[in-house]
Amino acid sequence: MALEVFHKDETLQMRRKLIGQSCRLFFSHDPVKIMRARGQYLYDENGMQYLDCISNVQHVGHCHPSITQAAAAQMDLLYSNTRFLHDNIVLYANRLAATLPKKLCVFYFVNSGSEANDLALRLARQYTRHQDVIVLDYAYHGHLTSLIDISPYKFRKLEGQKEWVHVAPLPDTYHGIYREDHLDPGQAYADTVKSLIEEAHKKGRKISSFFAESLPSVGGQIIFPTGYCKRVAESVHEAGGVYVADEIQTGFGRVGSHFWAFQLQGEDFCPDIVTMGKPMGNGHPIACVATTEEIADAFTANGVEYFNTFGGNPVSCAIGLALLDVIEKEDLRGNAVRVGGHLKQLLLQLQIKHPLVGDVGVGLFIGMEIVKDRVSRKPATEEAAHLVRRLKEERIVISTDGPWDSVIKFKPPMCFSIEDAERVSTCIDQILGGCTLLVKHTKSRMLSVLMWQRRYKEPFPFWNIVFIEQQWRNTQLKWIKKQTLSQ
Amino acid sequence: MALEVFHKDETLQMRRKLIGQSCRLFFSHDPVKIMRARGQYLYDENGMQYLDCISNVQHVGHCHPSITQAAAAQMDLLYSNTRFLHDNIVLYANRLAATLPKKLCVFYFVNSGSEANDLALRLARQYTRHQDVIVLDYAYHGHLTSLIDISPYKFRKLEGQKEWVHVAPLPDTYHGIYREDHLDPGQAYADTVKSLIEEAHKKGRKISSFFAESLPSVGGQIIFPTGYCKRVAESVHEAGGVYVADEIQTGFGRVGSHFWAFQLQGEDFCPDIVTMGKPMGNGHPIACVATTEEIADAFTANGVEYFNTFGGNPVSCAIGLALLDVIEKEDLRGNAVRVGGHLKQLLLQLQIKHPLVGDVGVGLFIGMEIVKDRVSRKPATEEAAHLVRRLKEERIVISTDGPWDSVIKFKPPMCFSIEDAERVSTCIDQILGGCTLLVKHTKSRMLSVLMWQRRYKEPFPFWNIVFIEQQWRNTQLKWIKKQTLSQ
Repeated sequence: MALEVFHKDETLQMRRKLIGQSCRLFFSHDPVKIMRARGQYLYDENGMQYLDCISNVQHVGHCHPSITQAAAAQMDLLYSNTRFLHDNIVLYANRLAATLPKKLCVFYFVNSGSEANDLALRLARQYTRHQDVIVLDYAYHGHLTSLIDISPYKFRKLEGQKEWVHVAPLPDTYHGIYREDHLDPGQAYADTVKSLIEEAHKKGRKISSFFAESLPSVGGQIIFPTGYCKRVAESVHEAGGVYVADEIQTGFGRVGSHFWAFQLQGEDFCPDIVTMGKPMGNGHPIACVATTEEIADAFTANGVEYFNTFGGNPVSCAIGLALLDVIEKEDLRGNAVRVGGHLKQLLLQLQIKHPLVGDVGVGLFIGMEIVKDRVSRKPATEEAAHLVRRLKEERIVISTDGPWDSVIKFKPPMCFSIEDAERVSTCIDQILGGCTLLVKHTKSRMLSVLMWQRRYKEPFPFWNIVFIEQQWRNTQLKWIKKQTLSQ
Repeated sequence: MALEVFHKDETLQMRRKLIGQSCRLFFSHDPVKIMRARGQYLYDENGMQYLDCISNVQHVGHCHPSITQAAAAQMDLLYSNTRFLHDNIVLYANRLAATLPKKLCVFYFVNSGSEANDLALRLARQYTRHQDVIVLDYAYHGHLTSLIDISPYKFRKLEGQKEWVHVAPLPDTYHGIYREDHLDPGQAYADTVKSLIEEAHKKGRKISSFFAESLPSVGGQIIFPTGYCKRVAESVHEAGGVYVADEIQTGFGRVGSHFWAFQLQGEDFCPDIVTMGKPMGNGHPIACVATTEEIADAFTANGVEYFNTFGGNPVSCAIGLALLDVIEKEDLRGNAVRVGGHLKQLLLQLQIKHPLVGDVGVGLFIGMEIVKDRVSRKPATEEAAHLVRRLKEERIVISTDGPWDSVIKFKPPMCFSIEDAERVSTCIDQILGGCTLLVKHTKSRMLSVLMWQRRYKEPFPFWNIVFIEQQWRNTQLKWIKKQTLSQ
């Protein structure tokens, strides 16, 4: 059992003092102290269990014993760098190659998704001898200087857009310029990239790469329309650039039906560079760039060594191999199909019931849009935040994302079960319904409405009160309303 | 015992196919396959032992059981991100703070030295609102796009120097413009930075930071002259910039007498940002940026989150804490002083004996210059390479560095012993002496001279033959010479 060294308040106080405040906590007004975790469950300092819908990094479940054992065994043998020959790195590269189209057959191991994307940028530029990059709106590709530059999500709040960056519209058929009723949104959105390239060429600029997450995450778990990637790749290749698929959040079977999310676009599409990271080591810092022989050869041709101190070390690769084994042995891709499919059905039922629920997503990488109403599709940011806070009270850890932080984001460990899906869906139903839970624990709920207002310094959301009125016509409600109004 | 999966040749073949060839191997003509390691010893696939003088990352010795145990125990409890509260990160930051001057009290945890340096760049720029960077000649600060730009060692071979980068001369009192006979080389070299700032200002440019390793490593294990850093910091502060000390190779007691190499410059010097990495996790990917409250506050003030998926996770911090414990418990700083001091003495004795030995270094971060002769100080690159190859045959793994790859670089695990130091010194003595070893194993040595020529496709170095002639006047020599000339 994990022992607490400091009381939670003291940990928080020390953290505020010692750790840069740009490093934020989940639920910053009332953060959670997690002492241990197993599978899809987190345990706080009082042993309280939380269902984890947030930790996509702990891909096969927190602290999977197979992975811990593989790591410990290799740590006891060798934890050195890749300038010595070792079997693990080639074994691992070989296993990864088997999941990818044949042409993606050369690998570079690094320590984080950010390092992978930065290397992808270097590879693309070295190969094409061009500098410019096309990215999707709202994209986030990492915390490094070079990646802030290609992340509209970040650079809009910081130094602004560089002249070598071109931002294409997010091919979002729910909120975007072309929607699901368009005849061929894939073509229409791909044409926006083509136009962007033409404009860039007019300015004398040259495109090195098109960079996109295969399911834009910060963008709001967007599923690309059919044919989009293939057509974009054609335009980009024509311009002498390469297609970089950022699979850092979406790879390793997260989408269930395929090992990589770019494969959702069909067999006739293959990126030139794939970057991978987060789930790769189940929490351990490991990431990778896969590319073609031609691109790798161009990078080698400059005669400059690429040395990554920790990248591809025997322990990281042992962990990576163990993770692939667990995905297979426990059929976690099958589980993602089954549980993800069931969760999607449950959320679609909620959509019928609650006007706040807009679009929903795919696999175990599901976004549920919260909108003011389904006609205007106006994002309901505040309501989504409230839902997250309330779910936390129900011991379910989840987060929002998307351009307006209005997408409830499901990306749990892949061992997430049918029962977990039902528990979350029921809770969301009850919270959106406003009162059902209140019926269960009348007194504590009444108090929680009041405490909610005190804690968040804002009135209890009107839409929740409306539901309470509709569904819970009794004295308790009147009492709450009276108390609420008198504040 | 570690089991080989593939025969060495097959591993090599697979590696050439699957791993980007820019990722180089030690001894690329005849790489070593290492299966396991312990302390300062490496073991190849045949169980052959090598003395390791190269692995500064495996700081307290390869596969130290305390560190493996700490890692495995924490991996079994929680391997999550820092958005949840946890004791380890604050415990670790607190321990690191105790090793640093008081003003360096805010920490950001990342996964690699490169990530740390990139963040340092971002912090410096955000705080100063200036863009330009001053770096030392031959410097290497990491493999990321932003760091290639500030690494003359790399950018000279690639895209060239950016307009926002200014290169100051390496304050090298052995090879540089001001040498050990100068009255105040610290002042003289600091003035070169001052002039560089003045020139930059004339062009309307603004300095964000001066970036330097505290003992430039690729530069050739250079020890800064007294007073250099303090005076540079003064000029940089005057220009509105900050001093970034890159301690990625040199921190954590490597220099013995101090925990950080910048402390060699005295108590009246303190950098504004310190980056740390390589030895921090004994092989595990962890790195860190330490800075002042003012700089951290400026970074927070932009309102943009800094999230590093793996940085500062409970396992990385548990490993970091265990490493600090081992350094203390095993008095490894004391060991660095004793063994490093002894090794230095031994190398100085070699200097008296062999004209090829030029300058030597400090602590367990020692550089031994190999020069054509000690008057011209012309770097003896080929001879240094030969020495490394020959030491490998004696089962000692070591490398060269410096602008001309003429510095034999000692940066062994910190548990390196007096006996190890003597073994290396004796071997170097014998190799430089040319014949002593030949006396020991006449037949195999004669063969090895011939094999040397076949393998490296170049004649056996003349200087070695000269030594053989001087010291070993017998029939074996004549036989070797005859064979050598007839080839």
